[in-house]
Amino acid sequence: MRVPADHPGVAELFAVLAYGEISAFYRLADDARMSPSLQGRVAFASMAAAEMSHFETLHAALTARGVEIYAAMEPYRRALDAYHASTNPSNWHESLVKAYVGDGIAADFYREIAGTLAPEVAEVVREVLAETGHSEFVVHEVREAVRHSAADKDRLMLWGRRLLGEAITQAQYVMAQREDLTDLVIAATGDLADIAALFDRMQLAHADRMAVLGLH
Amino acid sequence: MRVPADHPGVAELFAVLAYGEISAFYRLADDARMSPSLQGRVAFASMAAAEMSHFETLHAALTARGVEIYAAMEPYRRALDAYHASTNPSNWHESLVKAYVGDGIAADFYREIAGTLAPEVAEVVREVLAETGHSEFVVHEVREAVRHSAADKDRLMLWGRRLLGEAITQAQYVMAQREDLTDLVIAATGDLADIAALFDRMQLAHADRMAVLGLH
Repeated sequence: MRVPADHPGVAELFAVLAYGEISAFYRLADDARMSPSLQGRVAFASMAAAEMSHFETLHAALTARGVEIYAAMEPYRRALDAYHASTNPSNWHESLVKAYVGDGIAADFYREIAGTLAPEVAEVVREVLAETGHSEFVVHEVREAVRHSAADKDRLMLWGRRLLGEAITQAQYVMAQREDLTDLVIAATGDLADIAALFDRMQLAHADRMAVLGLH
Repeated sequence: MRVPADHPGVAELFAVLAYGEISAFYRLADDARMSPSLQGRVAFASMAAAEMSHFETLHAALTARGVEIYAAMEPYRRALDAYHASTNPSNWHESLVKAYVGDGIAADFYREIAGTLAPEVAEVVREVLAETGHSEFVVHEVREAVRHSAADKDRLMLWGRRLLGEAITQAQYVMAQREDLTDLVIAATGDLADIAALFDRMQLAHADRMAVLGLH
């Protein structure tokens, strides 16, 4: 069953995605301070810039629906800020893993939902979930780091698990925030068993991403 | 007299501009912390993102010349970091004025030089000096602030003067850093009297920008 384009949860979905872009921008800019090289600072700045281009897309989509973006984002600030506060990297390698894995988890979740939305809505969602680039840089840096240290590898594997756990916790909190959004997610995924299957698929995708980083 | 496209100072010019974009990105991201509103944080993030798109243009231009961008930027880090360290805003209004006026001063300087460069080089310089947008937001915020407080207006006028002074100090330092760049600037501007005239024009343009902000 497709969720119609005029479902009131669509604006909510765009709003939570928009605040997600802003908060990812500032998280990347902050975390880049830990980079030992200018290359790392440039890679994170480029990823952050890509988030802002996605934000503009969502801004335009919300404006086209007559929705004021700042008011619409407000209800989601607390949950997304809480996610970042609870997963504050303590070193550069944790920042790299978070940039790669954290974005991926969010993208999986929204992409699953997008599959059941009206095509014009799904297109916006897919566009803003496109790769922010520079993942090659991240993959290379993390693989190098864990190749030389089993202790670092263990720590980063635990870190990845914590990122997944916090993301799922906050995703459930975000969904529970607003009735229209909850309604859209349920309409999109089906029943509770389907939601459980969705989280299972997210765990598998997460494990694949960790493996790409050499964390398996 | 036109400066030829293969003048060795051209790569130096692109490199100093490129590091300027990176450092402006992180300065905006940092200063945005002082914003009392999410609108301010979004405006600064959008400006920062535009700096990164200019960085990509310079990266491509340097790569096309066979120049490795990170090595090329290295000599300019100290001077540009020193400019930002010496003009660290202490509140949100100072951040707004710096974002508007500081970018403008740099753009005036480089645009004057661009006028005498080979067309294909001038085009790159003009492209990366294009407005980063969102200046309407900045102008509105500053005008509102100074309309209500003569004390704030006085402080921000002093702040603007300091930004100009520090920018000119650091510009002279940057130019003196590298022989090829000094040579390009002299070839572009003419003799010492012409350089003095250039700084006079920059002061006038600065005064105009301050006036737009209600600071006159």
